[in-house]
Amino acid sequence: MTQPVTTQPVYAGRVIDLGLETHNLPNGHQSTFEIIRHPGGAAVLPILPDGRLLLISQFRPAIGQMIYEIPAGRLEPGESSRTCVARELVEETGYFAAEFTPLGSLWSAVGFCDERVNLFVATGLVETESAPEIDEVIELAPVTLERALQLVEQDQILDSKTQIALLRYARQCENP
Amino acid sequence: MTQPVTTQPVYAGRVIDLGLETHNLPNGHQSTFEIIRHPGGAAVLPILPDGRLLLISQFRPAIGQMIYEIPAGRLEPGESSRTCVARELVEETGYFAAEFTPLGSLWSAVGFCDERVNLFVATGLVETESAPEIDEVIELAPVTLERALQLVEQDQILDSKTQIALLRYARQCENP
Repeated sequence: MTQPVTTQPVYAGRVIDLGLETHNLPNGHQSTFEIIRHPGGAAVLPILPDGRLLLISQFRPAIGQMIYEIPAGRLEPGESSRTCVARELVEETGYFAAEFTPLGSLWSAVGFCDERVNLFVATGLVETESAPEIDEVIELAPVTLERALQLVEQDQILDSKTQIALLRYARQCENP
Repeated sequence: MTQPVTTQPVYAGRVIDLGLETHNLPNGHQSTFEIIRHPGGAAVLPILPDGRLLLISQFRPAIGQMIYEIPAGRLEPGESSRTCVARELVEETGYFAAEFTPLGSLWSAVGFCDERVNLFVATGLVETESAPEIDEVIELAPVTLERALQLVEQDQILDSKTQIALLRYARQCENP
């Protein structure tokens, strides 16, 4: 992995940092790019004991509406992806999970951002108590896998990490 | 779609704008978020006459390496997604396509960004001449669908729009 030659910091925030980064390109040229640096995240597809998937409907200011997603969160400093999703699953849904199985990984927006999200499937779910943060508005939306795939096909699930988790999980179920 | 109550602009760039946006939440609270505004983009899965998929390997400064992707670009002001992918396909691969079929849509990073990417499948490919921009380093990487899905499973294709395009296209091929 190459590093920027120089970085002109623009903004250091709570969630993201923005910088103007000058990079040496493999073609010998040098160019400057607007780059968002993000600590990375983790997201989890929770499977309820009855086989349904525990999606959530969450208000997203960037989109200005409630949208379907899987539970997810940003990595705290030094936190593993597994610890992160275990924490977020309880906070956002009120469910504890006995087991987390890796379901791959993704870069969300490589054109301008380094955010990587590690995906998991959670099983062995037991209800406890949810504790969403004050700026999180979340409703539970359990659906069958078949229905979830319909929602993807009909562009009613647009969130990228959620589409990837559902589609990769569906392939595993169909090709065990 | 709700709008921010107020926006404190932080940065207006070539690709992205960053603002501190205060939003009224559905739970009655008001909160401020770091939000990236992006004009949106379009991406295309090109199918070669021999059935292989025309992936590209592209250097991405944010990730610091060459990565597998499908051709994609940012919408110019007033440009349709279809015009955008037709332009980007020629620029990045040197192939003209006779037909573009919608393959759904995605939000890349809803936690902090409004970027939406519309996906297409391109068929009827004819070779012409590529014209990548000076800051684009791109190699063609034609692969079979089977091989592309292996690369997804092995986390060698991590780009979100590329994973979604491949997985949605595979479902269409498997359930015609």
